[in-house]
Amino acid sequence: MSDAMTTDLYEVTMAMSYLREGMTAPATFSLFVRDLPPERGFLVAAGLESALDYLSGLHVGPEDVDAFASALHRPPGDVQALLGLEFTGDVRAVPEGRIVRAGEPLLEVTAPLPQAQLAETYVLNQVSHQTALASKAARCMLAAAGHPVVDFSLRRTHGPQSGFQAARLGAMVGFAGTSNVAAATAVGIPAVGTMAHSFVEAFATEESAFRAFARSHPGPVTLLVDTYDTEDGVHVAARVLRDLDRGPGSAVRLDSSDLGTLAVRARDILDGAGLPDVRIVASGGLDEYALDELVRSGAPIDTYAVGTRVGVSADAPFLDSAYKMVEYDGRPVMKLSTAKVTAPGPKQVFRRPGYADVIGLADEKPPADGRPLLETVMRGGRRTGDRSTLDECRARFATDLDGLPSAARRIRGPQAPRATVSERLSVLTARVRHRVEELARAPAAQPPDAERTASGSHRCVTR
Amino acid sequence: MSDAMTTDLYEVTMAMSYLREGMTAPATFSLFVRDLPPERGFLVAAGLESALDYLSGLHVGPEDVDAFASALHRPPGDVQALLGLEFTGDVRAVPEGRIVRAGEPLLEVTAPLPQAQLAETYVLNQVSHQTALASKAARCMLAAAGHPVVDFSLRRTHGPQSGFQAARLGAMVGFAGTSNVAAATAVGIPAVGTMAHSFVEAFATEESAFRAFARSHPGPVTLLVDTYDTEDGVHVAARVLRDLDRGPGSAVRLDSSDLGTLAVRARDILDGAGLPDVRIVASGGLDEYALDELVRSGAPIDTYAVGTRVGVSADAPFLDSAYKMVEYDGRPVMKLSTAKVTAPGPKQVFRRPGYADVIGLADEKPPADGRPLLETVMRGGRRTGDRSTLDECRARFATDLDGLPSAARRIRGPQAPRATVSERLSVLTARVRHRVEELARAPAAQPPDAERTASGSHRCVTR
Repeated sequence: MSDAMTTDLYEVTMAMSYLREGMTAPATFSLFVRDLPPERGFLVAAGLESALDYLSGLHVGPEDVDAFASALHRPPGDVQALLGLEFTGDVRAVPEGRIVRAGEPLLEVTAPLPQAQLAETYVLNQVSHQTALASKAARCMLAAAGHPVVDFSLRRTHGPQSGFQAARLGAMVGFAGTSNVAAATAVGIPAVGTMAHSFVEAFATEESAFRAFARSHPGPVTLLVDTYDTEDGVHVAARVLRDLDRGPGSAVRLDSSDLGTLAVRARDILDGAGLPDVRIVASGGLDEYALDELVRSGAPIDTYAVGTRVGVSADAPFLDSAYKMVEYDGRPVMKLSTAKVTAPGPKQVFRRPGYADVIGLADEKPPADGRPLLETVMRGGRRTGDRSTLDECRARFATDLDGLPSAARRIRGPQAPRATVSERLSVLTARVRHRVEELARAPAAQPPDAERTASGSHRCVTR
Repeated sequence: MSDAMTTDLYEVTMAMSYLREGMTAPATFSLFVRDLPPERGFLVAAGLESALDYLSGLHVGPEDVDAFASALHRPPGDVQALLGLEFTGDVRAVPEGRIVRAGEPLLEVTAPLPQAQLAETYVLNQVSHQTALASKAARCMLAAAGHPVVDFSLRRTHGPQSGFQAARLGAMVGFAGTSNVAAATAVGIPAVGTMAHSFVEAFATEESAFRAFARSHPGPVTLLVDTYDTEDGVHVAARVLRDLDRGPGSAVRLDSSDLGTLAVRARDILDGAGLPDVRIVASGGLDEYALDELVRSGAPIDTYAVGTRVGVSADAPFLDSAYKMVEYDGRPVMKLSTAKVTAPGPKQVFRRPGYADVIGLADEKPPADGRPLLETVMRGGRRTGDRSTLDECRARFATDLDGLPSAARRIRGPQAPRATVSERLSVLTARVRHRVEELARAPAAQPPDAERTASGSHRCVTR
């Protein structure tokens, strides 16, 4: 399947209509998250690099045209106008790793209308789900309060691609490693992992399992101690590590319920065995809520491995994201239907000290103390610079996190004040709303002839 | 990235240890879902074909060995034993589309231990997330009570791969179509879709947008009527459809809140305009709960488009699945740690009338009225038959759904009685548990020498 086919059919039907009507003037679409899910105080922008990869490579080939025609039950000739379509537009976006608020554009595409429309599904998919995963992972970092966090999610993410992104995005917000070998290799992050319960069960005894593992893995090892009785398992691990003089850097892993209590017992046993350097790794159904409780309780856990609940962002597996046209052929547009009003015009977000963000128009002069969040990342269908490296994304996140107000950082009941809107954007919104309502109130008066729909003949609402 | 790398590092560390210890005897791993999520009365088996694709193609090549070595900070020579590893084992599984209960094995792998272990992550990923998505989609079919349901989820699934599966699995449980062109093309299902709000906004008026759309799309069209004022939009659509004589087969789409009320108004307007054949399509945040309410309220909605909440299984985005070793080298094994006991031995599920399932041992004689759910689908690393076609999967689901008790079908508060366990499996479980507890109670007595860990020298617990 080509990427061009990975789209909603309606992008194709609309693009066909636009081409037939000669409506190829530039359109700007704005991608933003309307409202944050419950228990989110901020979002971490992500998915941009995947979106740019898609836009760079977008090409409607003959097999795509055949697929579109077949999907529409039309002869391929009817869809021929799409053949060879590529993305030649511009993209302004918030770079990956930056922290944003609800309502703030994450990405704006400006391109000939059929292109900008056809790109919707794929771009929205990548930015939405990656931003959801990055934001969840970021909360784990906050909850861990300085303890290392690692990603164990691959086995239950929504497919291997999503598992790859979960690992990459975890690393972006500061995770110390991932169990995912493919992601570790491709992204250049530490791979972590030790043994499963099945490993212990494959041997006659827990001790023989631990010793066999140590034989084939020189240096520090992590031993899973809760296959049978956890406290017994810690005793066995302590004996093996001491016998082999493998304490420093080694660890025991707890993967059961009541991790806090078991960690206290394990710590006592290890200390009593003269192994104060052996660390405790905890895993098993962990997310930022569990981490927060364990950390606050003072549980002697050194490293937290988060998995499924983080890799699928279990409490908020999707974002209320939108990709809305805000301008066509120089005319700001907006949607008025119930509860989903979209402000018109290409935009910029100005970040002022203390995250007092202002959403304004793209061509607006920044406030004296405001710095723009959206940067031009693609011009004429080509990236304006290199891909962001993981280190660059990490640095952006770390910097933005430093300044994030404490109310937004809370694990339970975070507060997420919305950005304010600039004077110019407010005025434009009111003007366009008035014009749209006027048009909507007089449908019978609308001339239904074809001429009025050609791109040159819109009633333009100028700013 | 090769598929072999798409694995948790611990699968690699364990496989290395097994190879070093000569532990290459056959192991059986059982994949099952421990407990159903809240609001689930059944699961629809899925992901098997993806898992078999992976197993058929699994090959550890030189670049994989390099990646493993690099991940482990070891010289490639230390990982060389994995080079060339392929899957040569057997798989018994519940075919895609069948309805299963919690605790029932969905898939059992029997293969030389290093292979069966290395396969865990990928197989568990595919079966878990696809079963979650299929089960969610099946509930939408139940809630729709005969109304067509279509999939609009691609824009917010966890990546395009997951979007593809959401479309395929929707079709498997009876969805009438998908917006996803790639999936529609590859799987051979109807593609559906019309226009976005942006399309309407790109024109000077709603009416000119509808007329332009109709010009480029002969035959029935679906017009999105809620960009501005919904009732006005329906009036405009009615006028255009009547003028163009395009009523029969055409539709209006509502994509806003309060769909029930708006559908009643839209139906009145369309009927009043002499367009009783124009259907009403509803979309926008729909899932089985919303469908159930709308259908029960008698809303005059003809087709339901479900999207994000279904494509990410929003209320249950993961399953409590496990891939547990149940036998090694002829010795049944089990894990005893808190609350996660795994019954030992290769298993079979016998379905008796009224879904009175019995979980027994794989080599057990079926009860007189019971038919086995798991079939041999791979032998010696090769599929035993062709891939299941979509029609075959659909037929299995439809048949199983027919017999599903009403308590399990409920949208709110479904009841999901667990399968019972056969006499032979109960006896085996008790015997292995006793043996394991005995071993666990006497850790000091375990001889720690290497010899005892070699594969031939286990204390076998025979059945």
